[in-house]
Amino acid sequence: MAKTVGVIGGGQLARMMIPAALELGVGIRVLAETQGMSAALAASAVGDYRDPNTVLEFAKTVDVVTFDHEHVPQPVLRALVEAGVQVHPGPDALQFAQDKLLMRQRLSDLDLPVPDWAAVENPEQLDAFLKDHDGRAVVKTARGGYDGKGVRVVTRVTDVDDWFTTLAEDGNGGSLLVEELVDFHRELAQQVARRPSGDIVAWPVVETVQRDGICAEVVAPAPGSAGRIAELSQDIAVRVAEGLGVTGMLAVELFETRDGRVLVNELAMRPHNSGHWSIDGSTTSQFEQHLRAVLDLPLGATGTLRPWSMMINILGGPEGATMPDRYAAAMGEHPTAKFHSYDKESRPGRKVGHVTVCGDDLDEVAYQARGAAAFFQH
Amino acid sequence: MAKTVGVIGGGQLARMMIPAALELGVGIRVLAETQGMSAALAASAVGDYRDPNTVLEFAKTVDVVTFDHEHVPQPVLRALVEAGVQVHPGPDALQFAQDKLLMRQRLSDLDLPVPDWAAVENPEQLDAFLKDHDGRAVVKTARGGYDGKGVRVVTRVTDVDDWFTTLAEDGNGGSLLVEELVDFHRELAQQVARRPSGDIVAWPVVETVQRDGICAEVVAPAPGSAGRIAELSQDIAVRVAEGLGVTGMLAVELFETRDGRVLVNELAMRPHNSGHWSIDGSTTSQFEQHLRAVLDLPLGATGTLRPWSMMINILGGPEGATMPDRYAAAMGEHPTAKFHSYDKESRPGRKVGHVTVCGDDLDEVAYQARGAAAFFQH
Repeated sequence: MAKTVGVIGGGQLARMMIPAALELGVGIRVLAETQGMSAALAASAVGDYRDPNTVLEFAKTVDVVTFDHEHVPQPVLRALVEAGVQVHPGPDALQFAQDKLLMRQRLSDLDLPVPDWAAVENPEQLDAFLKDHDGRAVVKTARGGYDGKGVRVVTRVTDVDDWFTTLAEDGNGGSLLVEELVDFHRELAQQVARRPSGDIVAWPVVETVQRDGICAEVVAPAPGSAGRIAELSQDIAVRVAEGLGVTGMLAVELFETRDGRVLVNELAMRPHNSGHWSIDGSTTSQFEQHLRAVLDLPLGATGTLRPWSMMINILGGPEGATMPDRYAAAMGEHPTAKFHSYDKESRPGRKVGHVTVCGDDLDEVAYQARGAAAFFQH
Repeated sequence: MAKTVGVIGGGQLARMMIPAALELGVGIRVLAETQGMSAALAASAVGDYRDPNTVLEFAKTVDVVTFDHEHVPQPVLRALVEAGVQVHPGPDALQFAQDKLLMRQRLSDLDLPVPDWAAVENPEQLDAFLKDHDGRAVVKTARGGYDGKGVRVVTRVTDVDDWFTTLAEDGNGGSLLVEELVDFHRELAQQVARRPSGDIVAWPVVETVQRDGICAEVVAPAPGSAGRIAELSQDIAVRVAEGLGVTGMLAVELFETRDGRVLVNELAMRPHNSGHWSIDGSTTSQFEQHLRAVLDLPLGATGTLRPWSMMINILGGPEGATMPDRYAAAMGEHPTAKFHSYDKESRPGRKVGHVTVCGDDLDEVAYQARGAAAFFQH
């Protein structure tokens, strides 16, 4: 009998696991937050992922539990494990994706290259860090940030007064994470997948371009990365996956510094925006690989199908048009473009889809991808 | 608003349209014959496709109706069209896929290359045809054949006594189709897609290898086909699509004769087994293209992602093992293989899945594909 993967969360990452599950002929069930979400086709349950009973009942209908996001609380994850449920990634790994201070501490303990950082409990500690770093730094809340939220570049301690106030009100003795503002040449991302039994595979490292804290474009492989940069990136991601006990997909967001170092920025323990190119551009997509990994099946080949792939995110605009509304024009001009719509309500700034083009010549790939994406931009 | 495609029939062809619909973000609903079919995930209705009311009610829930098979009766198709439903391919085209005598007559009228053929109403007429063709011929029932059923190689008129008896009992004045036994070098298949507004695209012609009347292997492109054979095949398929008014996918099964001609064998007006390689091996799969075509959207590029693709069918065996039962072994040995399971009950001889490998070297591709498929064979 084919096994069934249960996905907690009904967003586009769960949605993009469905085609992979259909092709492999493995079952997929989704616990969605609400009706009508992006992954609605496979939603067998609707409920609150913070409620242990809801999640435990859902887990009884599947063979392994995995995630569309990293927000399931630790007590719920621990309850699953105690009930004998297979959970990938497990709570011991996920805590490092849920708390950036824990993550920074663990990576430092593993001697992985990270920006200078400190945990700061009050403005005085932040002020001291700023003085040591030319008066500039990045401050992050330990929990709850994504797509640029919970991250601020600061030059004065008063820039995060509100966050210190919130910490004081919480009364949990929490801290903010402060990091050096890295003088980076560009941002990279390295995807790897790891089975519970230990095998790991890595895709080529990619270059990511962010706008307003949101991933805008990805080029795979990162131009000029063959050799040292690719080896450094892969080595880092493999050490993170092993050191943190990650199972399933791991994305490591990296800075390539102007002086040629590669530093870990953020982690995601699930399929990640920087790996969407793999649906069209790699022998094994990150979504199929995630299913294989959490089912502890042998991992698929991670080579590129064409020398270059470019993925461009489509964000929702003010007028609420969906991608399919504009397919007639976009497809007519760009026959090699692959169009991915997440069937989400269009709201300004929300990721509602992406476009990927693969080919032999990066200039041509970029021209086609940007041209195709422009039909959906605002 | 994204449009919704309605598929009549819940088999693996409908199933393989679901990933394409999810990626494009267009809706898909399936009218399945029974519960638990291969395309069950998108089955919004279960009912008899021969019943006009069932089909009309289903059609009200979608924007365009298309098919997993060619068995919907003409009166039902005509009722849909009269009710204003968009149907692709339409009944005027589908009749040629439903009746091989009509098809042969129409192709002959269009001056397309076909084997010598005749409609025979009785043993005497068959005997005359045999005498003109070295005592050997292929006899086919006009309707209802597939995967080698309804097709016999005959040397004596008594070889099809039972079919003549059935014809006589029907009393409809029907005929059998008799064709010359073509001395072919190999079998080919040419896929094209055509929009209602007329645009046509063609994939590279492929070689198909049949065993016991069932497609066993497909190599894309057909080795040594570049040039004359590819042009002949494509020209034939385009003329068939236009001449018969096909909308959506058309597969033309061809004979390449020992004396270098290309003759039309059979037609299918839907995604076809000989095009499954395109899921992994072409920029646009036949399933995505079928959706684009029936929605009258611009068609996607049909180039290959790698120089060679080989697809091998997996047939059910006596012990009822499913493909996923053997993934651990097969995936471990063949990381570049793409595994497709149709989630159908395994019965001897039934198509339950396929394996595709794409790569630069045909020998290596064939080695990997046959090796991977062997894990599921009996």
